[in-house]
Amino acid sequence: MAAFEPKNPGYRAATIAMFDAQPAMRTLGVMIVRLSPGEVELAMLHSAAFTQQNGFIHAGIITAGLDNACGVAAFTLMPEEADILTVEFKTTLLAPARGERFVFKAEVVKPGRTLTFCEARAFAEHEGKTTLIATMSGTLMAMLPRKAQQTPRMSSARRGD
Amino acid sequence: MAAFEPKNPGYRAATIAMFDAQPAMRTLGVMIVRLSPGEVELAMLHSAAFTQQNGFIHAGIITAGLDNACGVAAFTLMPEEADILTVEFKTTLLAPARGERFVFKAEVVKPGRTLTFCEARAFAEHEGKTTLIATMSGTLMAMLPRKAQQTPRMSSARRGD
Amino acid sequence: MAAFEPKNPGYRAATIAMFDAQPAMRTLGVMIVRLSPGEVELAMLHSAAFTQQNGFIHAGIITAGLDNACGVAAFTLMPEEADILTVEFKTTLLAPARGERFVFKAEVVKPGRTLTFCEARAFAEHEGKTTLIATMSGTLMAMLPRKAQQTPRMSSARRGD
Amino acid sequence: MAAFEPKNPGYRAATIAMFDAQPAMRTLGVMIVRLSPGEVELAMLHSAAFTQQNGFIHAGIITAGLDNACGVAAFTLMPEEADILTVEFKTTLLAPARGERFVFKAEVVKPGRTLTFCEARAFAEHEGKTTLIATMSGTLMAMLPRKAQQTPRMSSARRGD
Repeated sequence: MAAFEPKNPGYRAATIAMFDAQPAMRTLGVMIVRLSPGEVELAMLHSAAFTQQNGFIHAGIITAGLDNACGVAAFTLMPEEADILTVEFKTTLLAPARGERFVFKAEVVKPGRTLTFCEARAFAEHEGKTTLIATMSGTLMAMLPRKAQQTPRMSSARRGD
Repeated sequence: MAAFEPKNPGYRAATIAMFDAQPAMRTLGVMIVRLSPGEVELAMLHSAAFTQQNGFIHAGIITAGLDNACGVAAFTLMPEEADILTVEFKTTLLAPARGERFVFKAEVVKPGRTLTFCEARAFAEHEGKTTLIATMSGTLMAMLPRKAQQTPRMSSARRGD
Repeated sequence: MAAFEPKNPGYRAATIAMFDAQPAMRTLGVMIVRLSPGEVELAMLHSAAFTQQNGFIHAGIITAGLDNACGVAAFTLMPEEADILTVEFKTTLLAPARGERFVFKAEVVKPGRTLTFCEARAFAEHEGKTTLIATMSGTLMAMLPRKAQQTPRMSSARRGD
Repeated sequence: MAAFEPKNPGYRAATIAMFDAQPAMRTLGVMIVRLSPGEVELAMLHSAAFTQQNGFIHAGIITAGLDNACGVAAFTLMPEEADILTVEFKTTLLAPARGERFVFKAEVVKPGRTLTFCEARAFAEHEGKTTLIATMSGTLMAMLPRKAQQTPRMSSARRGD
């Protein structure tokens, strides 16, 4: 991926504040491990409370980690005043979420003024071995306050903006 | 949707047992509300522990409910000895998950010996109003024990079987 | 689905003109069969030129029909000056595209100023029998000319708008 | 991606034969540019017959190229007697398909006896510049003849197999 230039010089603090404002991440035990413009790595320890009938972490919980990774990656490139919402994502589950620790890596594929497209991968760390267990392809949307939208910002000539 | 004939006459008890064996559903407070062959309705009360930065339920948690609804709907049509795994799903988020109670309705679009395709919708109940907040399109897979697979069960002439 | 109110009173002529302006639809032989606000039915006859290795219509061609049905359905609800682009879609292939005629039905699940969400289904007509062969879940985007965007149109309080 | 070991020593000829048996690829003018186990590159020249209302290649046609790239990549890793079908895919459209030539690169993310997961990217070459215009995440299925399925081949312990 190309390196991205953040629009918000304080992107780092803003992104961490947005992440910390999500009780769901605290409840699931998801933490930020690494953060740079358009790229992020989150991690979560195994918790029996979030398993399915075979003792693996539930696909929805893995998806919560992947979705958050995408959201955080997209948010690093958004302007200061933006809020972020997920439009849609697809999760593909390649292997059972069996392990002691789970890692969610996301990167921006294409940033845009309105829509940002991300990809993410989930890995399970089990007995010293790391396995790719899931992938995500997602669309995130920047929500700008009304005032900011008065200035025409979108060009109809470009897509994804 | 056409009515479906369950292969497992004890599908009801088997499905409830599979659902109850998932700690994640208990942790999220998801319950089965209604269950028939190929169709299911789950529900979950609002919990501040699973919200994102705006106080709405996190998209990943909504996805966990939708995915489980798909899994339960698919499982009702699977043979007695089958276990079930999610292959992939796409979640589209139409509106914020704001409400006191959330409902997840899923139905089987096409059952098959190996793959079953489902669709699900999530609704938020907020101040007496019900809003469609998310949709899911998902693929589930039946995992049969080795023995059961010795008999040739798939016909190469039909898809999704 | 709820009935939708078109923003453009001339939506019918505008939609047909947009459809007719697509050489790809002419080449594939796709035609509009039925059109109302937020709902559309397209049809296509079998053509050996668009088959895959088993003589079925190629999944990409079925997807072209489904995507166009979504685009047309979404376009009926867009304002007069809007152009439309597909953001993303997922196609699920339930059965082989075997038949003499194929029908693509789409409807808007949620319209919005910027993003419109649609669902579509493809059917194959084969020897007097109609079979559901594919489903689509898609996101479409309205592209407004710069001038129209100077007026603040989005409310940060609502999603999908 | 890890290098993959083909199960079929004659994978190259088998894959080319499968590709050449698809009239749709000939009609669209899609050709194999590069082929190795689990990886493929296809290309297609611009054709006005497959454009949409703005003169760009129709999203469904780009999807046909991406889907075929996924199918070809997956097929290189399948056993000799297998046929292949697409289960589902998601296409994300990042930029208009404007250009003189389009390239579709796919790679297998995880091969399996029954299901193979692939990712693909479409690029437009326009006035000497190459732009990423679309991504795909897809699931492909191996269809084995009845005889081959009598031997138990699936292990219930592993996913995606």
